[in-house]
Formats: sequence, structure tokens, C-alpha cells
Amino acid sequence: MLEKNLLKHIGKLAQKKYRRDFGHFIVEGEKGVMEALRHGQVAAVIISAILQDDEHYAELTRAAKQRGAEVHFASNLDINKIKTTETFSGVMALCEMPENDFDDIDQQSHILYLENISDPGNLGTLIRTADWFGVRNIVLSRNCVDPYNDKVVRSTMGSIFRLKLIQSSDDAHTLELLKKDGYVLSILDMNGDDISTISPQKRHILALGSESHGISPDLEKMADQRYTIPGQGSAESLNVAMAGGIALYQLMKNA
Amino acid sequence: MLEKNLLKHIGKLAQKKYRRDFGHFIVEGEKGVMEALRHGQVAAVIISAILQDDEHYAELTRAAKQRGAEVHFASNLDINKIKTTETFSGVMALCEMPENDFDDIDQQSHILYLENISDPGNLGTLIRTADWFGVRNIVLSRNCVDPYNDKVVRSTMGSIFRLKLIQSSDDAHTLELLKKDGYVLSILDMNGDDISTISPQKRHILALGSESHGISPDLEKMADQRYTIPGQGSAESLNVAMAGGIALYQLMKNA
Repeated sequence: MLEKNLLKHIGKLAQKKYRRDFGHFIVEGEKGVMEALRHGQVAAVIISAILQDDEHYAELTRAAKQRGAEVHFASNLDINKIKTTETFSGVMALCEMPENDFDDIDQQSHILYLENISDPGNLGTLIRTADWFGVRNIVLSRNCVDPYNDKVVRSTMGSIFRLKLIQSSDDAHTLELLKKDGYVLSILDMNGDDISTISPQKRHILALGSESHGISPDLEKMADQRYTIPGQGSAESLNVAMAGGIALYQLMKNA
Repeated sequence: MLEKNLLKHIGKLAQKKYRRDFGHFIVEGEKGVMEALRHGQVAAVIISAILQDDEHYAELTRAAKQRGAEVHFASNLDINKIKTTETFSGVMALCEMPENDFDDIDQQSHILYLENISDPGNLGTLIRTADWFGVRNIVLSRNCVDPYNDKVVRSTMGSIFRLKLIQSSDDAHTLELLKKDGYVLSILDMNGDDISTISPQKRHILALGSESHGISPDLEKMADQRYTIPGQGSAESLNVAMAGGIALYQLMKNA
């Protein structure tokens, strides 16, 4: 049985405000939990009690203890109260939110800047894709969906623990600071140069706008370069995660 | 008020078997309905009764009548019984499933072959992306998620009405026929040549495997070429829709 307090705490982490107040979030599934143990800060690992004697999970338990995380076994009744997916895979972790600020930016790598991305799946896919292409910094505008939302965490497939995520509180100021610091700002929209001509700078920001409104006028004004992914069919647009992924692919290929 | 029979019919179209038996499916939202009217076969358009006098919807009503589709106005009570999204935008259409077979393949265009894609969002995004890059044929293996599932239809953003979708009943036989017909089969997996070296043939099939199992051994055996999207970070893989979109981008760019 899980302690009532822990159960209540985990349940409340479904709310963004509560996650912010406590600096905790949840990751579900073996892959995510292993990545959290490797690259994140884990307060506790919760394993389904029916798996207590499973050798497979014994390994995970050892890894958790090595990293100083508490290990709890939970009854099905408890799991049903706290799981974030219909098909709970048997394990979840209570993680500490990293408090990154601009000093934490990995200066050896580019930045993916995301403005007002609202769909959790899109944000998660973009984080996963940036990780694939070796772009190690994600800066989120003030009004992006919370990256510690369970759907976002799930769709990053563990990448959320490996990249530097920085949440901006004043978007224009953030971009000004980065530009002063030598970053070149490229935006992706419908009227730019062919993305295949992008020439990666030493410090490069690739910026994407929201699903419904695209790049904001304020962001557009600050841009040094504009790029477009040329289409040949009849679709009106690409999905924003897809557009971002293709641009990241091309940016890293041209390096 | 909607007739009870129509209401019942639409409600049942949430089930795949019923969709198959009747050859009908639903698209929700103005953009999707307009694309259905332009490129698909629409049996009926259902508009929220509160929008009956909205000039905006009058246009849609005219378009529907021109295309020979019935127009119905539905009360909120009825809408609540049949809507497929929480936030119903005011309009849906009852569409007829096209019965494409191999003779319908657009021979001027390549083929995207999808094996056992199970996530509706991934399938929808792939259809939308193929449409963007001008790949006009999608062949689905027997065990793909149903493309007329409401989530798939929604995430294609209207592209489902513009492309040729062909559902295979015998995957190996389908691919054999296409190869005999002169198609070159390229698969995307983790151990192929760099995708940037892909050289589009006159008749080209790009094949993607399932989210959890990748390309099947049977499909691998039939492949003429294998390609990979090189990564530089630590992510284990790309999302399948992302990988497919990047490969389509590169395929069309090299043409």
C-alpha cells in the first residue's frame, strides 16, 4: 500500500499549478523511468505490487536505490488512482523538475525556440526529434503547453530528461538576450527561403510558431532569416512538429 | 431535429465494422467538410441548428446542395449524441468511402506504403505530409489502423479526400504485384544508407514499419533499398510519422 500522502500528492500532479508549486512531475513506463534515473532527479519509483518478484523489475529497483530514489510497491487499487494512461505498464516515477535558466544553455549546441505550441503531442515529438538530431536546448515561450504535462512527457520517449528545457517568462526579452549573445534567429513560416539553403551559424536559434497562428508578429520582427519547406501537393500546411523536424534535419545536415 | 434513423446510423459509424459494412464515415469541422465536398462523395452535411442563419454556414449549405448532399440541421441534444470531438465546431459530413483498388493508383506519383501503423495520429500526419510533398498514393497493409477512424480523418486536415488510399488484403501479394509493375521498394529502418542519398525512381515505393516493431522480416526481404535518417543525439529513434515525413521531404527534394 502506498502512503495516503504520497498517493494524494501524485494524484494532484495532474494539475499544472500543483506541479509548479511542488516542482514535481510524473513519468510512466519503464523506458521513461530508466531515462529519468539516468539523466534526471527521481524522488520515488512506484512499481505495481504484482511485479514485486519479477526479476526484470528487480533491476529497476536496484537502479532506483543506487540513485537514492525511494521505491514503493502499489496495489492495483492505488495504481488506478494515480496512473496517467489506460494501460499502465507497471512502473512510474516521481521526478523533480529541473530549474534551468539561461546560464544552463549548452553553448555547444543550437536552440529550438517554440512559440505557443499548444498540443502536448506536438511538443513531445519536437523534444524527441531535437534529441535525435543533437539539438540540446529547447526554449519555450511563456504560453507553450506545460512540458511536464503527462502527455508531453510520454511522447518525448525519455528525451525530456536529456535536453535543456528553458521556459521563458518574457519572450521578447529572452530573444533579445540570446541575440545579444550572438545567436542568429531563423524562423520557419510560409514565405521564406527554401529550408535546404539554411546555413547553420555557430549559435543558431530555429523558431517555430503555434499550430493555429504560426509565428507571431513580434517574433517575426526579430527574425534574422526566414525559411519555408517547399511543398508540391495540395495540403495547406504541414503539422508544426513535422515542419520543425524537417527543418532540424536540414539544419544538422548542412552543418 | 435529425431523423432517428440518421442519428442512429451516424452514432454507429464510431465502429469500424459498421463503417466497413455501410461504406460511410464521418468528418467533422468546416475545413474537413469543405474538402470532402470538393474532393469526396458526401451523402449528408449536418449543421448545428444554432448556426442555421449564420451567413458563413449559408455558403457551406449552398456548396453541399450543389454537390447533391442532403443538408440537415441538428439540435444540441442530437449533436451531443453524434459528435466525435469535445469541442464540436458546428458542422460534420457523412461521407462515402471511396473503393479504390490497384487500378486507381496514380501512376504519375510515388507510393507511400505503411505497414501496421497503429496510432491514428501518426497515420493522419503521414497522409497530410504525403499530400504536402505531392505523393498521391498511400497503400496500407492489412493491419494498419482504419484510415476512416475519426482521429485519423481529423489529423489529415482534409488530405484524406485528396489522396488515393488503397487498403491491402494480402500484403506480400500486393508488394509483389507492384514490384512486377516496375516499382522500386525502399524501406526505412535503422541500418540503411543515408536517406540523403536516395535517388527517386520513376516508380518508387517508400515503406515504413510499425511504431513498435519496425519493418517486418517479410517486407525487409522484398526491399530493393534500405535507408536511415542519421541521428547525432541520444534519442533511440524518431517517431514513425516524423521519420516518414523527413524521408518524403528528401525523396521529393532529390527528384
